Amino acid sequence: MILAHLTWPEIEALDRNIPVLIPTGAIEQHGAHLPLITDTLVVTRVAEAVEKALPGDVLVTPTIWHGASHHHLPFAGTLSAAMGTYQTTLTDVVEAMVGHGFHKFLVVNGHGGNIDPNKVALRALKAAKPNLFLAHATYIDFWPQALLDECLTGRIKGIRHACEAETSLMMHLAPELVRADKLRDDGLEPDGGFLGVIANFDEVTENGSFGEATRGTAATGQKLFDSAVAGATEWVRQARAGVSFVSL
Amino acid sequence: MILAHLTWPEIEALDRNIPVLIPTGAIEQHGAHLPLITDTLVVTRVAEAVEKALPGDVLVTPTIWHGASHHHLPFAGTLSAAMGTYQTTLTDVVEAMVGHGFHKFLVVNGHGGNIDPNKVALRALKAAKPNLFLAHATYIDFWPQALLDECLTGRIKGIRHACEAETSLMMHLAPELVRADKLRDDGLEPDGGFLGVIANFDEVTENGSFGEATRGTAATGQKLFDSAVAGATEWVRQARAGVSFVSL
Amino acid sequence: MILAHLTWPEIEALDRNIPVLIPTGAIEQHGAHLPLITDTLVVTRVAEAVEKALPGDVLVTPTIWHGASHHHLPFAGTLSAAMGTYQTTLTDVVEAMVGHGFHKFLVVNGHGGNIDPNKVALRALKAAKPNLFLAHATYIDFWPQALLDECLTGRIKGIRHACEAETSLMMHLAPELVRADKLRDDGLEPDGGFLGVIANFDEVTENGSFGEATRGTAATGQKLFDSAVAGATEWVRQARAGVSFVSL
Amino acid sequence: MILAHLTWPEIEALDRNIPVLIPTGAIEQHGAHLPLITDTLVVTRVAEAVEKALPGDVLVTPTIWHGASHHHLPFAGTLSAAMGTYQTTLTDVVEAMVGHGFHKFLVVNGHGGNIDPNKVALRALKAAKPNLFLAHATYIDFWPQALLDECLTGRIKGIRHACEAETSLMMHLAPELVRADKLRDDGLEPDGGFLGVIANFDEVTENGSFGEATRGTAATGQKLFDSAVAGATEWVRQARAGVSFVSL
Amino acid sequence: MILAHLTWPEIEALDRNIPVLIPTGAIEQHGAHLPLITDTLVVTRVAEAVEKALPGDVLVTPTIWHGASHHHLPFAGTLSAAMGTYQTTLTDVVEAMVGHGFHKFLVVNGHGGNIDPNKVALRALKAAKPNLFLAHATYIDFWPQALLDECLTGRIKGIRHACEAETSLMMHLAPELVRADKLRDDGLEPDGGFLGVIANFDEVTENGSFGEATRGTAATGQKLFDSAVAGATEWVRQARAGVSFVSL
Amino acid sequence: MILAHLTWPEIEALDRNIPVLIPTGAIEQHGAHLPLITDTLVVTRVAEAVEKALPGDVLVTPTIWHGASHHHLPFAGTLSAAMGTYQTTLTDVVEAMVGHGFHKFLVVNGHGGNIDPNKVALRALKAAKPNLFLAHATYIDFWPQALLDECLTGRIKGIRHACEAETSLMMHLAPELVRADKLRDDGLEPDGGFLGVIANFDEVTENGSFGEATRGTAATGQKLFDSAVAGATEWVRQARAGVSFVSL
Repeated sequence: MILAHLTWPEIEALDRNIPVLIPTGAIEQHGAHLPLITDTLVVTRVAEAVEKALPGDVLVTPTIWHGASHHHLPFAGTLSAAMGTYQTTLTDVVEAMVGHGFHKFLVVNGHGGNIDPNKVALRALKAAKPNLFLAHATYIDFWPQALLDECLTGRIKGIRHACEAETSLMMHLAPELVRADKLRDDGLEPDGGFLGVIANFDEVTENGSFGEATRGTAATGQKLFDSAVAGATEWVRQARAGVSFVSL
Repeated sequence: MILAHLTWPEIEALDRNIPVLIPTGAIEQHGAHLPLITDTLVVTRVAEAVEKALPGDVLVTPTIWHGASHHHLPFAGTLSAAMGTYQTTLTDVVEAMVGHGFHKFLVVNGHGGNIDPNKVALRALKAAKPNLFLAHATYIDFWPQALLDECLTGRIKGIRHACEAETSLMMHLAPELVRADKLRDDGLEPDGGFLGVIANFDEVTENGSFGEATRGTAATGQKLFDSAVAGATEWVRQARAGVSFVSL
Repeated sequence: MILAHLTWPEIEALDRNIPVLIPTGAIEQHGAHLPLITDTLVVTRVAEAVEKALPGDVLVTPTIWHGASHHHLPFAGTLSAAMGTYQTTLTDVVEAMVGHGFHKFLVVNGHGGNIDPNKVALRALKAAKPNLFLAHATYIDFWPQALLDECLTGRIKGIRHACEAETSLMMHLAPELVRADKLRDDGLEPDGGFLGVIANFDEVTENGSFGEATRGTAATGQKLFDSAVAGATEWVRQARAGVSFVSL
Repeated sequence: MILAHLTWPEIEALDRNIPVLIPTGAIEQHGAHLPLITDTLVVTRVAEAVEKALPGDVLVTPTIWHGASHHHLPFAGTLSAAMGTYQTTLTDVVEAMVGHGFHKFLVVNGHGGNIDPNKVALRALKAAKPNLFLAHATYIDFWPQALLDECLTGRIKGIRHACEAETSLMMHLAPELVRADKLRDDGLEPDGGFLGVIANFDEVTENGSFGEATRGTAATGQKLFDSAVAGATEWVRQARAGVSFVSL
Repeated sequence: MILAHLTWPEIEALDRNIPVLIPTGAIEQHGAHLPLITDTLVVTRVAEAVEKALPGDVLVTPTIWHGASHHHLPFAGTLSAAMGTYQTTLTDVVEAMVGHGFHKFLVVNGHGGNIDPNKVALRALKAAKPNLFLAHATYIDFWPQALLDECLTGRIKGIRHACEAETSLMMHLAPELVRADKLRDDGLEPDGGFLGVIANFDEVTENGSFGEATRGTAATGQKLFDSAVAGATEWVRQARAGVSFVSL
Repeated sequence: MILAHLTWPEIEALDRNIPVLIPTGAIEQHGAHLPLITDTLVVTRVAEAVEKALPGDVLVTPTIWHGASHHHLPFAGTLSAAMGTYQTTLTDVVEAMVGHGFHKFLVVNGHGGNIDPNKVALRALKAAKPNLFLAHATYIDFWPQALLDECLTGRIKGIRHACEAETSLMMHLAPELVRADKLRDDGLEPDGGFLGVIANFDEVTENGSFGEATRGTAATGQKLFDSAVAGATEWVRQARAGVSFVSL
C-alpha cells in the first residue's frame, strides 16, 4: 500500500503489524551524466516494486529525498539536509506513525551519506521507545557479491558514485535522464587511501563521479534492480511475518 | 527547469537571477474521500505547470511534502513535521542554493498549515542574509474572489479542507484517487467561532473534512487549477524580470 | 486581576476557568516621531483596560515586550528576540500557568511581527497539550472596518507602521512620548508590491515609518483605543463564559 | 536615558561608549505578604534611579521580568523562564545592541535565581565576542555589610526571600502592594544545612517566604534602596568613564 | 567504590541510597609551570581519597575532564566544552544513574569555571525531577579560612589560578609535572577591580597564571589536600547517612 | 606527547602539522566478567602506546570516556552520552584545537557504539571547515583478518562484546579487573539475524556479554593489542608525514 494514496479511514482499518517502509534518498550531484535525482529515483522504484510484490503487507511512505549530502555541496544543485534536519525528519515520520499505532519500521535507503544519520536517528528512537522494531538497509546491501562479480565488467566490483552500477540502474529505470554523451570514468586511483578519512567529494573527484560509468548498461541495471527488489521484498516479508531473533 | 532532473554542470551554467521555486505540501488526512497526498499533489502540479510555462526562467526543486500538520495527527496516516523540522528543512534547501549562488527564492505552498512556519523560517533567513529575495504564497492566494464566487456553488466561497475547491482540484488532477462514494459535507457550522483560536482538526470535524465536498466537479477543478497556475506563473515571471519595489 | 500584583495564595484560590491574558509587544523603532515602546505601551494599556472591565474574570500577565522584530534591526535601538527565543518565552509563560492549573490562554498582541511566531508557538503547544484552550488576536483585529473607514482620514484605511492609526493611539495614550515636530508621512508607494515578499524595513522605508503619521490625532486615537478595548473585552468575556464552538 | 522612550534617530546619535544597563527580575512568589512582582519592581526602581542620577551617561533597557524561577514553581502564579529561555533572552538583548554599535553592558539583577544563568550567558557571549565589556551585579552586592548589620534588626544580617530586607524595600517602594496582615517569619532554622544543595523552595519553607518579614519597615527599605542606588550609580559611572583594570 | 572498575551485576546489587560522587575538572592552561591537567588531576585525587575513606558508601564516576574553560581558550592547548556541552554531559551522567535507580548525587568540582554551569545544570535537573538529592561543591569550599591564613605565605589568602595553593597541591600530588624553573608570580594587581566583570584570562594575566606560585611547597600542598579530602569525606558521609534539613 | 601533561607555552611552540589523536571510549557494561571501564581502558592504552612510539609526532588528548551507549543502559552502571552530547563533546575538542592552529585530527575509537556518531560529527565538522584533515578508526580496524583467524580459538573470528577478543585484551592489560570466575559464553545464536536491525543489548543477551569469553587468554590479548598499536602507529605516522591522496 502506498500511504499517500490512502485515506485516513483506510489506514485506521489496517493491521498494526504491517511494516512501514520508509525510503530515503538524496538530491545530489552524480557527475555530468546522471541527474541529481538519481538516489531518490532508484530507491523510490525499489520501494514501489516491493509494494507491488507485497501489496497488502507493507505501507510505503513518500521518499525522504532531502538526504545528508553536505559532502557533495561543492557541486552545484546539490540540496542537503544538515545532520540534525535529516534525523528529525526521519524521526518525525516514525513518531507520527507510532502515534497511529504502528510499531515496525524499515528504512530502505538509496544514498550512502544517509547511512550514518539513519543509524544515529534510529538508535536514539530505540533508546526512547524500546518496544519499536527498527531496521535499515541500503539497497546495495541486498546484492550478493557473486552478482556484482558477474554483472560489473570493470575493476570495481561494487558501488561507488555515478559508477558502473548506478549508471546501469539509471539506464534501466530512467534512460531519458542519462546524458550518454557525458559518460566518463573517474576517481580511479588505485584502491586504498587513508583509513577512515572524512572527505568532501571535490577532494576525490574532479567532475563528481567516481567509478567506471562508461561500462554501464541497461541490462546490468535490470539485473541489479531485480536483485535489490528481491532482497528488499524478502526483508519486508520477514518483518511482516515476525522475526525469530535479532542479532547485532 | 526541474532541478532534480539536471546534472550539476547544467546547474552550474545557469544565470543566478533565475528564481528557485520551492513547492511545499503535506501528507495529511483529507477526510474519507481524498487521499493523504492531496496537498502535495496539487502544489506539485502547479509548480510543474509553471515550469512548463517558463521553462528556462525558473528552477523547481522537489516538493517538501513533510508539512506542518500536527493539527491533523488525530487522524490516521497523517505524517507531520514538527515546527522546527519543517523550518530547518526549508532553510536547508534555501541555504544549499544560496551556496550555489542563487538569491531569488519563491515558496509556492499547497498546505494552510505551512503558512505560519514558512513565514517564520523565511523571516529568520532574511534576518541572517538580508540580500536574499524571499517570497511565499499559497496557491489559493492567486485566485481572484470573483472566480471563487463564480466557481463554487455552495455557501462557502473559499477554501476550507477537503472541501468543494480541493475536491474539485483532485477530480481534475487525479480522479482515480478520489473516493466518489465517500464524498460528504462536513464542518458546516454557521460562520464565526472564536477569534484566533488554535484548534486541532478533531475538535472541528468528525470525519476530517470541512466543507461542501459533494459539490466538487472536475470542471470546477480545472478552472481553479488554471487560475492558480496563471497567477503563480505571473508571480515567478515578475521575480525573474526583477521587482520594481517591495511592499509589506 | 493583575497577576504580578497578587500573592501566590491569592492565585492559588482562583477559579481555574479564568482566562489568562498574555499581552505581547515589542521594543522596536517607530520612525522619528514615536518611541521604541509604542507597541508594548499600546497593548499593555489595552490589557489593563480589559482587566478593569472584567476585574475578577481575567488574569493579566506582564507584557512580553521582547518581540520578534528582526526586520527592524537595521534601525538603532530596536531590541528583537530571535524567533526561537520569542516562542520559548511565550511557551514558558503558558506552561508555568498550566502547571498552576489554568487551561484558557488568550494572547493579545500589539506587534505585527509577533503574529507568525505566536501561531507557531501556540500550535506546537496545542499539539503537545490538546486540552488547552488557546487563542490569539492582535488588537487591530477588533477594529471594524467601518470604524477605520470613518476614523482614518488618509488614503490608507488600516494599520501600517508608525502610521496615522499608531500615531493617533500614542497621541491619546502617551502624548508626552510623541515627537510632534518629527511627524512625517512615509512609505506611501501605490498599493501592491510583490505578493508574499519577506522584507526588512530598511528596504521599504527610509526613516522607519510607513503611513500617514501627519494625520494622527488624539481624538482618533481614543476612538481606536476604545474600540480595541471593547472588542478585546468581549473576546475575553466569551472565553470566560465558555465557548460554544470553535471554527477555523 | 530610557531606551524604550527614545526614537531610533535619537539612539543612532548616541556615543557608543555609553553603557547599556539591563535590569533582570522575576515574577515569582514572595510568600503571602509580597506580590509576585517584587523582584522586578525593586530592580526596575533601582535602574530608574540610576538613570536619574546619570541621565546622559547610561541607556536603560526594559526589565527582563521573565526570570529563572523554576525552584519557585511549586507556588501558584510563579512564571519562570527555562534556563535556556532566560539566557537567550539576555543574549538577544545584548546582541541587538551590539548590532547597533554598543559595547559596554551592565546587567543589574534583582533575583537570586538569575545569577547563575546570567553568568553562563555572559560568559558564552564573552567567548564569542571577546571585545565586549560585560559585567553583572545583583543590587544586594552594593550593600556594605555594615549597613546590613545596622539596618536589619533580626538574626539574619543579609537577604533571604520575602525577608526583612525585601519586605522593607517593598514597604518603601510600593506599600500598597504589601499585605501587612500576612507578614510572617519563616524558614528560620539554625544556620547551616547541606553544603551546595540544590533545593526547590517548597522543600525549605511552607508558605514561600524565608526570613524575618515581621521586622520590615519602610525606613529600613529606604536606607537599603538608597544604598543600592548609590552603589549601582557608581558602578555605572565607572563603566562610563572607562575601567582602569579588570580583576577576577 | 570506583564505578568504572565494577561490573554491572555488582552495581545492580548496590543499595540505592549510596551517593554517586561525580568529579568535574578541566583541561586548561595553568601558566608556564603547571600542566593542563591540573584541575582534573587534583579533583580526581580528592575523589579517590574520599572513596578510600568510605569504600562501601560512595560510588565515584570517572572525572568529567571536559570543563567549561572558554575564558582560557586564548592560551594554547586548552580544551573547553561549550556551556551547553558541559551541562548535557553532567546531566546525561546523572540521568543514566537515575535510570539505574540512584537518587543522591554529589558533584565535587575542581575548576572554578564549572561552578556556574554546574548550578544551572543541576537546577534544571531538580526542576524536572524534584525528588533527586543534588549538591555540588568545589574542593576549595572545604578549606577553613583559618587553614588558608596559616598555610599560604603570601598576600593572597585564597585560591586564584596556578597560584600558591594550586602549585602546592601539584607539588604534593604530581611533582614530576611541575616545571619548577618556570614558577612565576603574576596577576598581582591590588585587590579590587570592576564588580562582576566577565573577563577572559588574557585580559588579566600575560602568562596565564594568577597568584604567587613561587611560594608553593609540597608541604603546603599536603595540608590543603588533606583538608579538602577530610571535608569532602564528611560531606559525602552526611549525604550517605541522610540529611536532616536543607537550607539555601 | 600527552596534551594534558604539557603547559600552554609548550603547546604553543609545536609544529601545527602534528596530528591530534583523540581516543574515544565508553563506560558501559561488559557482562559479569569485565568492568565498565573496558572500552576506555583499552583505547587509552592503545593511544598511550602510539604516543610512546611517536613521541614528538603526535599530540594525544584525554580519552572521551562518555560514549554513546544507550543500547546498554538496561544494564546497571552504564553511563551514556545522548547522541547530541557525544557529538558536541567531540566537536568542541576539535574546535578548541582548531582555534589553537591544529588541522589534523585522528579519532581512535574503542567502542562500537561511537562509530556512527563519530562519523556524523566529523562529517558536520568537515562540511563547516573543509580544510581540516579528519579521520577516525576503531582499533579493531587495524587487525588483519589473518591475525584474528589465528588468535581466536572459537567459532567467532572477530569482535563482539565482552567476547574472546575483549576478554583477552583485558587479561593482558588489566588482569586485576577481570572477574575470572564469571567468564561465560553468551549470545551464541547461529550467525545471521535480521539485516540492519537496531537492537538494545537486553534483546540479544541475558547477561550483557556476547561471545566466547571463556576462551580469552592474556597471550591472545597481547597479540591483539600489539597489532592494534602497530596499525594505529602507522596510521598516525602517515598522517604526520602528509597523505598522498584520500579515497572513500
